[in-house]
Amino acid sequence: MKKTIIGVMGPGNSATSTDLKNAYKLGQLIAQESWVLLTGGRNIGVMDAASRGAKFLNGLTIGILPDNNLHSISEAVDIPIITDMGNSRNNINVLSSDVVIACGMGVGTASEIALAIKNNKKVILLNNNLESQAFFVALSPQTVFVVNTPEAVIEVVKNLI
Amino acid sequence: MKKTIIGVMGPGNSATSTDLKNAYKLGQLIAQESWVLLTGGRNIGVMDAASRGAKFLNGLTIGILPDNNLHSISEAVDIPIITDMGNSRNNINVLSSDVVIACGMGVGTASEIALAIKNNKKVILLNNNLESQAFFVALSPQTVFVVNTPEAVIEVVKNLI
Amino acid sequence: MKKTIIGVMGPGNSATSTDLKNAYKLGQLIAQESWVLLTGGRNIGVMDAASRGAKFLNGLTIGILPDNNLHSISEAVDIPIITDMGNSRNNINVLSSDVVIACGMGVGTASEIALAIKNNKKVILLNNNLESQAFFVALSPQTVFVVNTPEAVIEVVKNLI
Amino acid sequence: MKKTIIGVMGPGNSATSTDLKNAYKLGQLIAQESWVLLTGGRNIGVMDAASRGAKFLNGLTIGILPDNNLHSISEAVDIPIITDMGNSRNNINVLSSDVVIACGMGVGTASEIALAIKNNKKVILLNNNLESQAFFVALSPQTVFVVNTPEAVIEVVKNLI
Repeated sequence: MKKTIIGVMGPGNSATSTDLKNAYKLGQLIAQESWVLLTGGRNIGVMDAASRGAKFLNGLTIGILPDNNLHSISEAVDIPIITDMGNSRNNINVLSSDVVIACGMGVGTASEIALAIKNNKKVILLNNNLESQAFFVALSPQTVFVVNTPEAVIEVVKNLI
Repeated sequence: MKKTIIGVMGPGNSATSTDLKNAYKLGQLIAQESWVLLTGGRNIGVMDAASRGAKFLNGLTIGILPDNNLHSISEAVDIPIITDMGNSRNNINVLSSDVVIACGMGVGTASEIALAIKNNKKVILLNNNLESQAFFVALSPQTVFVVNTPEAVIEVVKNLI
Repeated sequence: MKKTIIGVMGPGNSATSTDLKNAYKLGQLIAQESWVLLTGGRNIGVMDAASRGAKFLNGLTIGILPDNNLHSISEAVDIPIITDMGNSRNNINVLSSDVVIACGMGVGTASEIALAIKNNKKVILLNNNLESQAFFVALSPQTVFVVNTPEAVIEVVKNLI
Repeated sequence: MKKTIIGVMGPGNSATSTDLKNAYKLGQLIAQESWVLLTGGRNIGVMDAASRGAKFLNGLTIGILPDNNLHSISEAVDIPIITDMGNSRNNINVLSSDVVIACGMGVGTASEIALAIKNNKKVILLNNNLESQAFFVALSPQTVFVVNTPEAVIEVVKNLI
């Protein structure tokens, strides 16, 4: 039986300390619900922090890697999916997630939010970036949700799945 | 010798009449410069209008199709590339373009702009969507350009290639 | 920490009863070793049989689906990765597997064996198809292994990982 | 109106002198028929030789590149499609070709033949590799053709398109 899979997307090197704190907490809360965490799998930024949070509470972690090898994998990823597809793998990230959480904002994250909306996925924005909130909510007011805390993210996810 | 390839991205069914008029004109201007036009290849919206404009002036047109067949191809596409990759093909659209023009705005277009920035491509926005302009220029002020007419697009392209 | 992931590839609708029996047994043996099983994820043929075998002994099962939805998923898959990439996903199947087992033979399986060799993965052939054995062993004698039973497959895997 | 696109696949560094001679001749013959040539686009082996042959007679050449840049492009490619998909791009090569010609044999070529058959494409084998002929003809006797000269390839293509 398919498990519930929650995707956490967000910046790599450009993640802020708030993004990292939120991502770690999201990972913990996802593990507490016995959901599977899915990220971009690399050893930096939101991907790494969320995976570490989930592993701290013995969650299961999937990482969809852009490369053709394991060089950049987060130590906290249990199941690496090696795509060798570069940024095209962003579409797989969102398609494979029951709900997509965008923690922070960056160019790759923006592509994932847009692809998630395109694929009829629900997206939850957790950040302080007002331009991105205005833009994505205007693009799809019924499938994009804006919240302020990791705990509020989890409440929205529970209502969506 | 590699030809100059200009990508025109934009909405399908949700394209406005202004988007379609601009796209057709862009296709014509691109053909006039003897550049190759690259689009998403389908028989609707900006993709179709740009391809028709280019063919009207005997330009060469490439279409990167999301499907595994030719059912949705624009009649004005000379060279269909059949990817069977759904929206993952958006990354190929922007990687294969020397410059990316976003004509109008939609969810797929937003993903292409973000992926273009991520892949270090220059992007020209031709639309009236202020939220998208604010968002993408803030994401990458040095590689995103906002213009108001197809003719102005071509001037920017000439400076970039 | 990354888990050990063993890929089992093989025909869908054209699987023989021997292929299905071998696949089910392989799934069981992989679960017994506490390895993760990776397949193409669909509810037919070798993919389904291997996943069922693994679940019977409480193994963890990954399915890399070609579609953009879950319509064809095997009930025995825990973690579906939804690629929307059609047969291009075959490259992800083999890249994500520490060792690739080809159980039976078919056109899709042949593409996976070739892609596995191309990506420097070790491949174990379990079938009675002499043409395929001759062809693939000649292509890559040092990375393609031919065995006759599921138990022998597991012995070879233990030597490779 | 879509142009006729003929794919020529074959080994890179491991191409034999016969493969290269055949590929160059195939490129010439394809250009003579005013068909578009499609290859894997790199500056080695069969891809490069076929593209050079086609350009010598002013044919149009498409190259589907595995990388995210133009570093390895053949000088004889007019239209590079930059996929950043590694070997997954092999599926695009065959899907985008009206007919697939395998000139020589290697691991990548074997994956392309298998993917072509899987996608219901006709495949013409031009080589002296008896194992590959036996294997692929047995897999799909009605869609795989074996010939001995570039001229014979073109005759078969004319009957198929």
